[in-house]
Amino acid sequence: MRLPLSEHFIGLTGRWLLAACLYLSVHTVAAAADPLPSWTDGASKRAIIAFVQQVTEPRSPDVVAADDRIAVFDNDGCLWSEKPAYFQLLFAIDRIRALAPQHPEWKTRQPFKAVLDNDIDALAESGEHGLLELVMASHAGMTTTEFEQIVQTWLATARHPRFKRLYTDLVYQPMLELLGYLRANGFKTFIVSGGGIEFMRPWVEAVYGIPPEQVIGSSIKVKYEMRDDGPALVRLPEIDFIDDKAGKPVGIHKFIGRRPIAAFGNSDGDREMLQWTTAGDGPRFGLVVHHTDAQREYAYDRKSHVGKLDKVLDEAAGAGWVVVDMKRDWKTIYPEE
Amino acid sequence: MRLPLSEHFIGLTGRWLLAACLYLSVHTVAAAADPLPSWTDGASKRAIIAFVQQVTEPRSPDVVAADDRIAVFDNDGCLWSEKPAYFQLLFAIDRIRALAPQHPEWKTRQPFKAVLDNDIDALAESGEHGLLELVMASHAGMTTTEFEQIVQTWLATARHPRFKRLYTDLVYQPMLELLGYLRANGFKTFIVSGGGIEFMRPWVEAVYGIPPEQVIGSSIKVKYEMRDDGPALVRLPEIDFIDDKAGKPVGIHKFIGRRPIAAFGNSDGDREMLQWTTAGDGPRFGLVVHHTDAQREYAYDRKSHVGKLDKVLDEAAGAGWVVVDMKRDWKTIYPEE
Repeated sequence: MRLPLSEHFIGLTGRWLLAACLYLSVHTVAAAADPLPSWTDGASKRAIIAFVQQVTEPRSPDVVAADDRIAVFDNDGCLWSEKPAYFQLLFAIDRIRALAPQHPEWKTRQPFKAVLDNDIDALAESGEHGLLELVMASHAGMTTTEFEQIVQTWLATARHPRFKRLYTDLVYQPMLELLGYLRANGFKTFIVSGGGIEFMRPWVEAVYGIPPEQVIGSSIKVKYEMRDDGPALVRLPEIDFIDDKAGKPVGIHKFIGRRPIAAFGNSDGDREMLQWTTAGDGPRFGLVVHHTDAQREYAYDRKSHVGKLDKVLDEAAGAGWVVVDMKRDWKTIYPEE
Repeated sequence: MRLPLSEHFIGLTGRWLLAACLYLSVHTVAAAADPLPSWTDGASKRAIIAFVQQVTEPRSPDVVAADDRIAVFDNDGCLWSEKPAYFQLLFAIDRIRALAPQHPEWKTRQPFKAVLDNDIDALAESGEHGLLELVMASHAGMTTTEFEQIVQTWLATARHPRFKRLYTDLVYQPMLELLGYLRANGFKTFIVSGGGIEFMRPWVEAVYGIPPEQVIGSSIKVKYEMRDDGPALVRLPEIDFIDDKAGKPVGIHKFIGRRPIAAFGNSDGDREMLQWTTAGDGPRFGLVVHHTDAQREYAYDRKSHVGKLDKVLDEAAGAGWVVVDMKRDWKTIYPEE
C-alpha cells in the first residue's frame, strides 16, 4: 500500500523519534549502569546490587512490595565519621565552653572542670554519668526551636580537628550513593541512631535526603507549655529513650511499625538491629562498615571506645551480613571539597 | 510563507492535539472540581478548599513547600466513630471475656468481674485505674506479631452494637475524601491519636491510606528478646507514652520533628495539637468535627464522657478553627455498605 506523502512523512518522523527514544534510553541505562561509582567492583558492591535486584525485579520470585522496602541506617560511623569522638560529644563540649561564663561553679565541678581544662583523663574518669551530665547541661533548658538553631549554627562553623572540614562534609560518599540507589528503587530510608534525634534532624534532609520524620534516635523529654507569646516545647534534663543496642529494634517498632528488610551499621550497638532485620521472612540484607583505613579515615574495631565492633564481627559470617572493608571497597571516603 | 504539505499537516495535527489536550485537561478539572462530594456546599467545605489552594497554588504568596505540607488527624471521633465507647475499649472488653477461662480469679476481682457480669456501673466506678488494668491485661504479655494478629481477627469479626457493621466500616466518608484530597495536593497525612498505636497500625493503611510509620498514638513498653526461634518484641504491662492533650504536640515533635500546617480533631483532647499547629508562622488550618447528628451517628459535646468537646468549642471562633456541623456539613456519614 502506498502512503500519502504526509503519512509517509509521519512514518519517517515516527521511526526517527523511535530511534531517538531508543538511543536516549540506552544512553540512560548506560549512565545508570553503575549506581555506586565510589564502590570498587568487589563482593560488597555485587551483594548490594544483587539484593536490590532480587527484591525489585517484577519477575523475581522474591519481589517485595514498595511499601515494605524499609531500610535502616545507623548514623555515627556508618553515614558519617565518629572519631576522635562522636561529633555530638564535640558539640556538647563546645557548648559547655560557650555557656561557662554563665556558670562560674563549673570551674570547680566535674565533669565541667575537665572540659574547661581540656583534661581528657578526668573527662574519661567521669564515666557515663559524667557524659550524661554534659549532655543534659548542653542539650536541655531551651525550646526545641532554640536548640535547632544552636545545632545549625555550630554545624555551619565548627571544624573537625583533623580534617579541618565542616562536620556535615565528613559523610561517606559511598553511603550517600547507596541511600540514593535504594530510594531510586522504591526504598524508604530511615536513620536509626544512638545519637540524639534532635541533633540530627536539622541537617539530615539536606545532607542525606532523609526527612526529619524518618529519623529515629535517642531523646530527652520535652514538655508543652503555653507562654505569653504562644505555645512552646521545652527540652527537659531527663532521658526519654536510648536508641542503642536492644533499644534499636524497639525504636524501629515504635516509629516505623514494621520490620525493615535491610539494615546498615558499623558497631556492636547495631547488633540487635541487624538481628531483628535479617531474622524476618523473605529476602533480607545486613551490612557492616568495617573501619580499616587509617590513612584516609580511621582504623578501629574490637578495642575502640567509640564504635566498638567486636561481637558483630564474629557473628557477621554466620548471619550472612556483608562486611565492608572501607580501605578495599571504597574508592573515595568523603565528597570532594 | 507557504508550508510544504507535510508541515501543513503537522501544523494541523499539532493544533488538533493541542485542542484535544485542552479538552482533556478541562474535562479533568471538571471531574476533579468537587474533590469533596460528601461535603455539602457550605462554609466548612469552602474553607478547606481555600486553604489547600492557598498553600499549593504556585503563584500564591503563601505557597508551602510540599515537604512541609504536614497534616495531623485525631482518630477516635474524627476519622471513625467513638460511641457508645472507644472501639479500643470494646476490643479490650471482648478480649477480657475471651481470656477469662484462663483467669478464674477475675470472677471475683474488679474491674474484671464488672466486665464479665456486664455491670457498667461497677466498671465506671473502677475509674481510670480500672480501665488501665483492663488495657494491661488485654494488650500486654504477647509479642507484637501476636498482638497484631489478635487485633486483625477482632476487626474482621466484631460488630458495632448499634450499626451491626464492622468497626472499620464506621469511618467517616467525608474525612476519607478529605485525606485523599490533601494527599493529592502533596500533603503527608498523619494520625495523632490518644488511642493505642499498635491497635491502629494493623488496619489504617488499608482503610485510610496512612502507612504505619505515619501513625502516632499512645503506647505501652516493648522489650527485645532473643528466643530459641529468633528475636521477638514482647509487650510489657507498662505505659510508655500517653498521646493525648499536651502529649499530642510532644508526640508530633517526637515522631514528625516539624510543626504541621493543618490539624483535625473533635474533642478537648485535641486542643493542644490545634494550638501548636495553628500558632505557627504562615498559613495554618484547624478543624473540629462537632457531633450533631443523633439520627445518622451521635450528638454529643460538652457533657460527654467520651470525646468531650467543651473548651475547644469555646476557643474555636477566636482561634479561627473551622467547626464542622456533622448534620449540616456532611451528606453522608459512613461509606456505603
